[in-house]
Amino acid sequence: MADLEISFCPSCGAAVELRCPDDDNRLRHICTACGTIHYQNPRLVIGSIPEWEDKILLCRRAIEPRYGLWTLPGGFMENGETTAEAAIRETLEEANAHILIGDLYSMYSLPYINQVHLLFRARLLDLNFGPGAESLEVRLFAETEIPWDEIAFRPVKFSLEHYFADRQKGHFVFHMGELAAPVSTYCTALPESAKAPIIREGS
Amino acid sequence: MADLEISFCPSCGAAVELRCPDDDNRLRHICTACGTIHYQNPRLVIGSIPEWEDKILLCRRAIEPRYGLWTLPGGFMENGETTAEAAIRETLEEANAHILIGDLYSMYSLPYINQVHLLFRARLLDLNFGPGAESLEVRLFAETEIPWDEIAFRPVKFSLEHYFADRQKGHFVFHMGELAAPVSTYCTALPESAKAPIIREGS
Repeated sequence: MADLEISFCPSCGAAVELRCPDDDNRLRHICTACGTIHYQNPRLVIGSIPEWEDKILLCRRAIEPRYGLWTLPGGFMENGETTAEAAIRETLEEANAHILIGDLYSMYSLPYINQVHLLFRARLLDLNFGPGAESLEVRLFAETEIPWDEIAFRPVKFSLEHYFADRQKGHFVFHMGELAAPVSTYCTALPESAKAPIIREGS
Repeated sequence: MADLEISFCPSCGAAVELRCPDDDNRLRHICTACGTIHYQNPRLVIGSIPEWEDKILLCRRAIEPRYGLWTLPGGFMENGETTAEAAIRETLEEANAHILIGDLYSMYSLPYINQVHLLFRARLLDLNFGPGAESLEVRLFAETEIPWDEIAFRPVKFSLEHYFADRQKGHFVFHMGELAAPVSTYCTALPESAKAPIIREGS
């Protein structure tokens, strides 16, 4: 989700202009009447990897973007909550699932949409789950059942790939990465060599 | 930094009202004319722990809050950058210091001010550092020299405590915690037993 353009001052309603404040080094939206500087900053998208025995819980999206594709429960962190609370709330809202939060497992920066995605490992506490308003379907998947070609978002796909590789090794470690815009949002005239969608996807 | 109140629609300039959208479960600022929903979300504050041999680089703040106190270089993550880039930029701006970024070392949620603080371990690449516009002084500190009573922010203080304890053990691990408002912002009539400022400060 891209940030909305700021045309009017949220504080006083006057027009804003885009200029660099004296003690700053980048363009900001500044009110032409009251002088308030309206900063815009990246948002956190936070979710969980709910585990039940050797299975993982996924949700099939009932909303755009990526309607009908599978993802881990997650969404925008809200004011007034902690990162762990955000993961617990999103898992409850999207899957009606109750979890015990574990270690932070992955962090992906998506600078082209001003987002940072965090995923926590989590233990599913019972099997009383089901689709929330934003999910068509919620179910547990063994590794061999994961619908790899129908995963909605790259941070989820890469985190799940790391997850099963780590599990195979018997040792889970934190993973961090950075993603550039997917190829489909680039000019299609670019040569194939210029289309690599991943800047860096380390462990 | 608390979020600014939204009184007027940044998109069209009309008055906004605070109400819960139909498909939501919390109050949002919604425009009474164009209907745009203006979400507010937590901000990321990102910094580094620059290491040089057995020393750590700290900056003495030239700005409020906490003018004159010591901190690690850090600040608000900007749109269009990654978490690592934010740490590198803030270290350059506040200490004119060049670093090689390392592992994510700590994450603290501060829900009472809608912030999440991240600190990365980092290697200082040379000794050509000095105060940026927001610093009075920048210097390297051995563990025994750290001005513990003059550290500006709790996430920095707790991270440094973990850092030296981990170094002693010969093994650095990621630390996560949650902080409630400092005692000074509570009603001073509260009993001492109710003033514990830390919700949970785990490892």
